Amino acid sequence: MTGVVVLTGGVGGAKLVDGLYRTLPAGTLSAIVNTGDDFVHLGLSISPDIDSLLYLLSNQANRALGWGREGESWNFMAALRGLGGPDWFNLGDGDLALHVVRSEALRSGKTLTAITAQFTAAWSLDLAVLPMSDGSVATWLDTDAGALPFQDYFVARQCKPAVHAIRYVGAEQAEPSAAVVDALATARAIVLAPSNPWLSVDPILAVPAIRQALRDRRVPVIAISPLVQGKAVKGPTAKLMAELGIDPTNAAIAAHYDGLIDGMVIHDGDDVPTGLATAATDTLMHDEGDRCRVAEVAMALIARLGG
Amino acid sequence: MTGVVVLTGGVGGAKLVDGLYRTLPAGTLSAIVNTGDDFVHLGLSISPDIDSLLYLLSNQANRALGWGREGESWNFMAALRGLGGPDWFNLGDGDLALHVVRSEALRSGKTLTAITAQFTAAWSLDLAVLPMSDGSVATWLDTDAGALPFQDYFVARQCKPAVHAIRYVGAEQAEPSAAVVDALATARAIVLAPSNPWLSVDPILAVPAIRQALRDRRVPVIAISPLVQGKAVKGPTAKLMAELGIDPTNAAIAAHYDGLIDGMVIHDGDDVPTGLATAATDTLMHDEGDRCRVAEVAMALIARLGG
Repeated sequence: MTGVVVLTGGVGGAKLVDGLYRTLPAGTLSAIVNTGDDFVHLGLSISPDIDSLLYLLSNQANRALGWGREGESWNFMAALRGLGGPDWFNLGDGDLALHVVRSEALRSGKTLTAITAQFTAAWSLDLAVLPMSDGSVATWLDTDAGALPFQDYFVARQCKPAVHAIRYVGAEQAEPSAAVVDALATARAIVLAPSNPWLSVDPILAVPAIRQALRDRRVPVIAISPLVQGKAVKGPTAKLMAELGIDPTNAAIAAHYDGLIDGMVIHDGDDVPTGLATAATDTLMHDEGDRCRVAEVAMALIARLGG
Repeated sequence: MTGVVVLTGGVGGAKLVDGLYRTLPAGTLSAIVNTGDDFVHLGLSISPDIDSLLYLLSNQANRALGWGREGESWNFMAALRGLGGPDWFNLGDGDLALHVVRSEALRSGKTLTAITAQFTAAWSLDLAVLPMSDGSVATWLDTDAGALPFQDYFVARQCKPAVHAIRYVGAEQAEPSAAVVDALATARAIVLAPSNPWLSVDPILAVPAIRQALRDRRVPVIAISPLVQGKAVKGPTAKLMAELGIDPTNAAIAAHYDGLIDGMVIHDGDDVPTGLATAATDTLMHDEGDRCRVAEVAMALIARLGG
């Protein structure tokens, strides 16, 4: 069976992937995940968007925090502080296992794609979680506090600096893995998750071969709008749009994805973009039922588009 | 004030260092520590003997386990097992901070001496904890189960294989740091801790410049015997001596250190080696008082020898 491919990053995107994973036949979903947020911290290779997705799909996500692992402990951070180490980025004790194993695998020459596949297998997840590239792509923000790497902007400065421009350093040279190329080539539909278009989806689309695959599509591509009543459910999307001089509307999201998508799922009652197929539902995903409903609305829109 | 230098490795050695640290004037003690047990595991640079000493001196040692940190948690290991990672070497959540910070420092070009000094400063320890060398020296054991690196023998196989020979790979090429050279050159006395002579002290003495410094000594050098009634307090010393065809006596320990020491502290009632000065006390160090008493007996013996 040909599969569905979802492009995703961040927590909102992960919820949609979870909905698709629960509603689609086993083994037919591939998630191409943003790695523009990836960074090396204390010598550890950290892939926040991949990890958030893996934790959510395997029912290990920390619901209270909204990130990291359920039942996490923090003795590493306490000891790190005791040594005068950097404590601006929280690393949970259990979470460290992913980073240590991944870092060691990368140093030994494994690809991020291979080690991520090892994690999904260890947790018995029956989907392909695919880093957008095994090459290095780093999201940088030009802000009124200077040029900042993503984690410095997002975690250390909590998205406070005003953003003038966003760059995906290394993207032009980045190539998608064979698994990404194959997933896109054989997909029956492609979905852009309700992730931040600039910070989570655009780094993926900045990889030339991925963007070209969407431009050349022969199957439906739809987006789930990240906006609800002109605001982001979580994160800095609306603030970022304002700083970039873009209205926080579905029409603006559609314009941003112009030439790449055929349809959009929007939140009930929000502005309806023109020039593409739309479907409306309550896109707030509080629980598993919500996630499955939004996934089903997305798949129904794909069906309407012939996918 | 010129200082006292102690050569040490392992938990028994650390107890003697703690006794010396508590009884000598602040800032006058230097510990030269075995690094032959050091290894890289999961990409982390681990220095077990340095860490055991730092934990004990800073009152962070786990009393129940006899190794690691007090109040340790084990969520990293649980998560590592969940990923199918290697679990034969236990890494506590707080303990990981030392390894992660050290690994990152070494990769960034710092020496083990420098990062160890950073740890002693962070924990307000007023002594010099000096790795025997910043070069690589690895203890290997030739056993009836083949040639084994130290941790494989000691932890994974719990010292069960019979040992035919011990090698300190890299020792011939290893140079002591400037701090070690200086500590030895300015010492008023040198003490060999009651550590395993073959596994903990010999790797240090295998560094040519350190061995030569002891041979050329102009100050007293004494050893604390690791034996109590012909047995080791902890660890495989007596088993190892039997496998190497050496009687488990203080005379044999004295012969092993022949030409390097002038005196020995032995356990009450045990055999008294000839040809060197001796002092006897209860060398079992159950508590802080015991450690200080043994240290005081050692310093009194040094005084008798003119140190």
